Amino acid sequence: MLSHTYYHVFNTKKKREYINITGVVEKQLAESSVREGLVLISAMHITASIYVNDAERGIIEDIDEWLERLAPEGIDYKHHRTGEVNGDAHLKNLLLHHQVLVPVTGGCLDLGPWQQIYYAEFDGRRPKKIVIKIIGE
Amino acid sequence: MLSHTYYHVFNTKKKREYINITGVVEKQLAESSVREGLVLISAMHITASIYVNDAERGIIEDIDEWLERLAPEGIDYKHHRTGEVNGDAHLKNLLLHHQVLVPVTGGCLDLGPWQQIYYAEFDGRRPKKIVIKIIGE
Amino acid sequence: MLSHTYYHVFNTKKKREYINITGVVEKQLAESSVREGLVLISAMHITASIYVNDAERGIIEDIDEWLERLAPEGIDYKHHRTGEVNGDAHLKNLLLHHQVLVPVTGGCLDLGPWQQIYYAEFDGRRPKKIVIKIIGE
Repeated sequence: MLSHTYYHVFNTKKKREYINITGVVEKQLAESSVREGLVLISAMHITASIYVNDAERGIIEDIDEWLERLAPEGIDYKHHRTGEVNGDAHLKNLLLHHQVLVPVTGGCLDLGPWQQIYYAEFDGRRPKKIVIKIIGE
Repeated sequence: MLSHTYYHVFNTKKKREYINITGVVEKQLAESSVREGLVLISAMHITASIYVNDAERGIIEDIDEWLERLAPEGIDYKHHRTGEVNGDAHLKNLLLHHQVLVPVTGGCLDLGPWQQIYYAEFDGRRPKKIVIKIIGE
Repeated sequence: MLSHTYYHVFNTKKKREYINITGVVEKQLAESSVREGLVLISAMHITASIYVNDAERGIIEDIDEWLERLAPEGIDYKHHRTGEVNGDAHLKNLLLHHQVLVPVTGGCLDLGPWQQIYYAEFDGRRPKKIVIKIIGE
């Protein structure tokens, strides 16, 4: 069994931001030499998500508005008693989830034609980290 | 390490539809000869989900109404500027998620007594595809 | 390839309850001898979830209130025609999801500094079961 671990470290510029990381994952898959297996892409934060959907500007805006509607900012969350002000970012993380698992077939990410892998930031302007773990053979 | 890949291709008859695919996954597990490992079941679409819950007609109706309440049709989504009319289906996909991972123990799907695997369609009446990826030994 | 399976069986005291199970998972990882691989933690119920977030009392209260807002009790769910009264618990399960996958690197759970693994109960006061499946080498 082969395994390959990579930490993608980067800075986010905005509080909320949606970043296509499909290319980052593809590069690591090529380096892993895995032909058949699984790639886990997991945010190492509790205020960020990894999801799979369309690389289309409109739907990204829709996702952002929808998250804000279901898990809004500006509420007096109990978490804020700690001095934090990011209660909404925790709930947005739970709604979209912090991880995605992609099958690897013939050395490629086995995604549908419109499926792109995104990192969603909900409490940014800080260094952030994603773990990419590839296992297979 | 063994690996087994199967693409389940089918047509959906209705716009929204909930299909129990547990038997499809069990059949592939038997063909894979894997006794200990993991099965990934992943929709290859951005307007469909895979989830685990009850094979009970009432709860399926409840899930459908709940998804429609939290991610409704009939909104002027920004995604619709592309000519698409399925913005709600993208959000329903994100809410339920597009994939499930099931442990394999002793050659069987290691599910609880009420856990059944469902494909949920949100933009159907078209050919659809699920990837089933099994790894283990 | 190594594989290790453990069923964590326990009783929940309250109807809704949030239990940090990170230590339970770490103990099983140590017993598995896996140094590089994946750990799947999956609730074997359709009215409970596994999620990763903060071990902070306030955010747990926020999560509970948020789940109750988006998937409330006291609605005449169609599932209740079966005699059940836990329709909301099924929807809460779907919202938070029933499973999490954690990478294993150097024999440790490869989590971010604030990431803790929780079991969330939505229909408790009964014996409950989580399957922990570890594969790797």
